[in-house]
Amino acid sequence: MSRIAIDAMGGDYAPKAIVEGSLWAAQEYGVALELVGKQDEIQKEIDKIKSRGYILSDCGTHGHKRRVKIDVDKIDYTITHASEVIGMGEAVGQSIRKKKDSSIVAAVKAVAEGRCEAVVSAGSTGAAMAASLFGLGRIHGVSRPAIAVTLPTMKEPLVLIDGGANSDCTADMLAQFAQMGTAFAQCAVGIENPTVGILSIGEEEGKGNALVKDTYPLLKDLHEQGKIDFVGNIEGKELFKNKANVIVCDGFAGNVALKVTEGTASMLLKMIATEFKSDFIGCIIGLMAKPFLRRILKRINWEVFGGMLLLGVKGISVIAHGRSSAYAMRNAVGAAVRVLNKDINSKIAESVNK
Amino acid sequence: MSRIAIDAMGGDYAPKAIVEGSLWAAQEYGVALELVGKQDEIQKEIDKIKSRGYILSDCGTHGHKRRVKIDVDKIDYTITHASEVIGMGEAVGQSIRKKKDSSIVAAVKAVAEGRCEAVVSAGSTGAAMAASLFGLGRIHGVSRPAIAVTLPTMKEPLVLIDGGANSDCTADMLAQFAQMGTAFAQCAVGIENPTVGILSIGEEEGKGNALVKDTYPLLKDLHEQGKIDFVGNIEGKELFKNKANVIVCDGFAGNVALKVTEGTASMLLKMIATEFKSDFIGCIIGLMAKPFLRRILKRINWEVFGGMLLLGVKGISVIAHGRSSAYAMRNAVGAAVRVLNKDINSKIAESVNK
Repeated sequence: MSRIAIDAMGGDYAPKAIVEGSLWAAQEYGVALELVGKQDEIQKEIDKIKSRGYILSDCGTHGHKRRVKIDVDKIDYTITHASEVIGMGEAVGQSIRKKKDSSIVAAVKAVAEGRCEAVVSAGSTGAAMAASLFGLGRIHGVSRPAIAVTLPTMKEPLVLIDGGANSDCTADMLAQFAQMGTAFAQCAVGIENPTVGILSIGEEEGKGNALVKDTYPLLKDLHEQGKIDFVGNIEGKELFKNKANVIVCDGFAGNVALKVTEGTASMLLKMIATEFKSDFIGCIIGLMAKPFLRRILKRINWEVFGGMLLLGVKGISVIAHGRSSAYAMRNAVGAAVRVLNKDINSKIAESVNK
Repeated sequence: MSRIAIDAMGGDYAPKAIVEGSLWAAQEYGVALELVGKQDEIQKEIDKIKSRGYILSDCGTHGHKRRVKIDVDKIDYTITHASEVIGMGEAVGQSIRKKKDSSIVAAVKAVAEGRCEAVVSAGSTGAAMAASLFGLGRIHGVSRPAIAVTLPTMKEPLVLIDGGANSDCTADMLAQFAQMGTAFAQCAVGIENPTVGILSIGEEEGKGNALVKDTYPLLKDLHEQGKIDFVGNIEGKELFKNKANVIVCDGFAGNVALKVTEGTASMLLKMIATEFKSDFIGCIIGLMAKPFLRRILKRINWEVFGGMLLLGVKGISVIAHGRSSAYAMRNAVGAAVRVLNKDINSKIAESVNK
């Protein structure tokens, strides 16, 4: 049975939502857990779930909670005590070095020492990245690890890389992201021959900023070598139109794209709610329309995808949203489970060193 | 009466939609027109409208067309013949130099020679920018003109600058964009003391890429000098939350943000339509919900805002969407009208030279 290390103290709703979500995932996906953090706090949460027999969680539709039965006795878990926590606002480099007994550093250690096969954290993204990088090390040949994010579209999910690990990039880095993203799409999304595009402004070759223009010929080269299936520039408005399975970009543009998606969807859904509430008939129609809109909410909800993978480190490291609920945490563990036993890191090593 | 130069041949639906939309705007806003392009084609469109007495146009809700009465005899217009057209795919620099008698170059000339107060084009963005820059010249002290885009939010509209004129920027350029954007928000949106933010990944000072980190202290300086009201970093997901009236960024990130907004909204609305069509009851509820959704569509439709302003050139230059319908064109002319007689360019000159 695979064992997953959980940073039980990371995230806005830790340790409650983190413990609940990971136990749920353990039961759902049949994996064992090493819960890392303050022993007593973790134990208290587990005891509560055990005595109650269920957790209350929304399931991808904000605010609509339901009971999920959890049989704690059937779950294989251990608790590893870590006395410190790295907060959301802390300077990353410093805190990783100073807080040697922080939950994220100790959780990564569980993977580095071979007790676990993956680590999942909903704490500070910077801290999770740094801890994974220092604790696991880079895969030979990878110059910079990058964040791969899986996004919903009308058809199959889309992989965006880099989602924010490297705010300034070189063309060589983007070319590696294309190779790592290809391996990830094969392993995690199950697309045998994923197509790769580069995020740009304008479809034609030659459109874009200096970085895109420098990266384009490198991606063409990789295409000719048969290493990736490069399809050219992808504009922001085409992001969700399945023109490419993997889209590469620097971490700044990638994070802007991700967050703008989140912001636009949230504004639009708020506008819809406001519009329906504008008059009496609207309220009634709005009520009837609710189940339909809720289904959409579920389809586009980032919580369903749960976690982003840090690619390029020697191990599996999933970074979950800081606002992760139990449901989001369950799915973040699920994101780790999806790439277990898929040999993703050998594939990445092979592709960047060939 | 102010006169506006129209590039009648620019845009996917030119000259029909362009002529219809500008006549509509002339009637609506009480401005005169100089229609620039192929004389016979323009005249033919005008004759059609004259004999019919109306145009058929959607009004911000795709596909739902209504009649708009146009009394051509009451509109003050002239036609200026230009024999050439610059197509969407053409190399910008070359075509501007070679096609001296193209409609966009000739329309800009009408402003440069003082016959018109603004130029509006729905043709190639690159060609419209280059023609405006070469034909009108930069305002003294402005290092690079930038595109200001007005976006809908839940409250007052937001100004994003640069929307795509400069794909690679320096910190000094972004600092000027902040000043130009402030002048624009005052003139075009009517906000007396607009706040300014910088698009970044992470809210705290120090988060972002090298460009953002370099720009931050410059914006702080301008704030201390009382030139702008700087409020710090704005994340992509906060774009529409009215945390700042003006958001500065390089043209690459700006264009990605704009296009991702468009792509997300379009995917979401498609998902809603699909979801309602999934069963019989859904179809009925969907039909009832339609007027509500249509009102939202109208609120978020880029066509309502119509045009982006190229700030920093000596004159008013509005760049409309290439897919502009008559309705979008009417609003693009409206965007020019909103800044007429507001002395926006003296304000920009004053702020960058003070």
